[in-house]
Amino acid sequence: MPSRIVTLLTDFGLADPYVGIMKGVILSRAPEAVILDLTHEVPPQQIMLGALALRSAVEFFPPGTIHVAVVDPGVGSQRHALAVATRRHVFLGPDNGLLALAAAPNERQEIRRLENARLFCQPVSATFHGRDIFAAVAGHLAAGTALAEVGPRSDTMVELEFPAPQRRDGELVGTIVYIDRFGNLVTNFDVPSLAAFDKGRVCFRLKNSWVYGIVPTYASLPVGGVGALFGSWGLLEIAVRNGSAATVLEARIGDEVVATQEKRR
Amino acid sequence: MPSRIVTLLTDFGLADPYVGIMKGVILSRAPEAVILDLTHEVPPQQIMLGALALRSAVEFFPPGTIHVAVVDPGVGSQRHALAVATRRHVFLGPDNGLLALAAAPNERQEIRRLENARLFCQPVSATFHGRDIFAAVAGHLAAGTALAEVGPRSDTMVELEFPAPQRRDGELVGTIVYIDRFGNLVTNFDVPSLAAFDKGRVCFRLKNSWVYGIVPTYASLPVGGVGALFGSWGLLEIAVRNGSAATVLEARIGDEVVATQEKRR
Amino acid sequence: MPSRIVTLLTDFGLADPYVGIMKGVILSRAPEAVILDLTHEVPPQQIMLGALALRSAVEFFPPGTIHVAVVDPGVGSQRHALAVATRRHVFLGPDNGLLALAAAPNERQEIRRLENARLFCQPVSATFHGRDIFAAVAGHLAAGTALAEVGPRSDTMVELEFPAPQRRDGELVGTIVYIDRFGNLVTNFDVPSLAAFDKGRVCFRLKNSWVYGIVPTYASLPVGGVGALFGSWGLLEIAVRNGSAATVLEARIGDEVVATQEKRR
Repeated sequence: MPSRIVTLLTDFGLADPYVGIMKGVILSRAPEAVILDLTHEVPPQQIMLGALALRSAVEFFPPGTIHVAVVDPGVGSQRHALAVATRRHVFLGPDNGLLALAAAPNERQEIRRLENARLFCQPVSATFHGRDIFAAVAGHLAAGTALAEVGPRSDTMVELEFPAPQRRDGELVGTIVYIDRFGNLVTNFDVPSLAAFDKGRVCFRLKNSWVYGIVPTYASLPVGGVGALFGSWGLLEIAVRNGSAATVLEARIGDEVVATQEKRR
Repeated sequence: MPSRIVTLLTDFGLADPYVGIMKGVILSRAPEAVILDLTHEVPPQQIMLGALALRSAVEFFPPGTIHVAVVDPGVGSQRHALAVATRRHVFLGPDNGLLALAAAPNERQEIRRLENARLFCQPVSATFHGRDIFAAVAGHLAAGTALAEVGPRSDTMVELEFPAPQRRDGELVGTIVYIDRFGNLVTNFDVPSLAAFDKGRVCFRLKNSWVYGIVPTYASLPVGGVGALFGSWGLLEIAVRNGSAATVLEARIGDEVVATQEKRR
Repeated sequence: MPSRIVTLLTDFGLADPYVGIMKGVILSRAPEAVILDLTHEVPPQQIMLGALALRSAVEFFPPGTIHVAVVDPGVGSQRHALAVATRRHVFLGPDNGLLALAAAPNERQEIRRLENARLFCQPVSATFHGRDIFAAVAGHLAAGTALAEVGPRSDTMVELEFPAPQRRDGELVGTIVYIDRFGNLVTNFDVPSLAAFDKGRVCFRLKNSWVYGIVPTYASLPVGGVGALFGSWGLLEIAVRNGSAATVLEARIGDEVVATQEKRR
């Protein structure tokens, strides 16, 4: 089931040649690999943001895809390096929670630690395991090396808890977990978390602003209007039509978004 | 004549995983596709800038290339989604003018509306047709699906008028339509629009600055010197050698550039 | 020994479609080419930074890779365009020193000038040789054209001197040559240049800050701590664990870093 597709997600940015170097390492081992960038602009060392981006993307890739994710503040420490196989995909990355949402607990088939040094770039640097370990092992897997070759099985890996909205005084308190390029505010409200609310009468408070109801699409809003809708991440977004909600509402990642039932009639 | 090449041009940026997701959707349907980025940094929702970038690029791609362009402020509204075939290429994108310069009226062979929902990612989201419609259909076309399968023919599409320079008081008034990374000011003067001027004696006024003549190349200018030349877009550019004309002249997109015949001798 | 792999390194950025156009030109000539980006964010016209990035990357690519590098302030002037073959790779770029570190003098097998206009995009523009000359020739080489076809041999090319640390008053004075996305300060101290120092007792002065010793890895530092280590470029870096040394130390490219032997005991 290995495909030729390898995706990369890092916090390396594109200004430095690090990502290009990883691709060279992969292609040196798997000349037929097809390498795709998910994103390299995860804010430096923000594991949760990387984990969310990875989770949002993987379902759209074909079976056998190898996903390499490197947001790795602990590089060079004793943290483990992992390969995690689900029914459809293989994930490679540091054991710090980065893989834990995309390779959700109930989908994992096998966790292995990358300890077979014969698969690494030698000598392994202290600072760039993305190149020397993760890209190198990805190249071997894409070239057909069996997963069992990478190292011993493990029963556990570091988990990452997606922050669920919390009840407080009869309201449901969520938070902004991501802001995309358009300034859309992605919250941690998924569809089930809002199931108890009447869709037409739920409203959201963000600082001093109120957003009433959930609209089906940006185009349901007047130009410049603020609204809430379920976006492509499967999460509720606060958006401004043809504008930036982040700018208009002066919002940041981590800000509270409070869901409540509208009382007016 | 379908090739395996699919190009992508969007205003999605590269910080979010949206572009990577589109590639996953394409490769899931066309494992042999070769996907190239034209740019994803079109300023959000600036259809004209996207249309110009697309037009500047397409002639350099081989016959059969599929160009997917998504700058789509009307996503989720009633705007149509299109496939437009020219003699050499196929274009996919929203019906808002984005495709209208690259697939110029006199080169179009066939316009179709993307209405065959069996080709889409289901369920189609309200916010991300780049993934659910445009990438999905591109994948099917790259895998060999006939163009006629995508939906019914249309006789018309939304046009976009490239702003031609205007006569005013014996001068020709153009405008800055694009500023590239180097700060070069790309105007809407093409070669024919300046044919009536004596190339050595035409001059250009931008705010309070004057540029005399048209030089063949940046290297014809002294370092730090300002000059005008026809650039790789086929349009007149105001440039500063080894510097940024945008910074030196404090210029912005939309600023007037006035062509006039130099009277001094 | 030609492979299908072509890498690109430029100062074009990704906001404009220039890089995508180069890829179209290459694929039009070599449909089987695999094109990889090293980086396109070399600061405009900074030849040394481009040369360093290129040098850091090439060893990780397979034999036969074609590296196209375009940082070209002299485009349109009389500067030559080159192909340089080493034992493992072929390099294409302007003759301004950009290729001179990656294709080091003792590794060069053949230098040729790109003068066979039949391989170029015609007409050759005055401003975009990345497209019309370098990408075009790269496409032909990737498709199997012999290197001897590109133009006549040359015995020399413009060299670039990597700035070696200098002795001054019993100290060794280096400089910051690169700052990466994480704010790591890459210096021009390589391992041999510091061989005379006791690794545990060398210290580095940067403005008013002192860094003592060389640690093996970022993780050897306390969070927020400043340290020096040999990074993935093979050069000494000043780094802050989970932070930005550039911000903490207010450092810039070109700042002095002075190595001295610690006298305290």
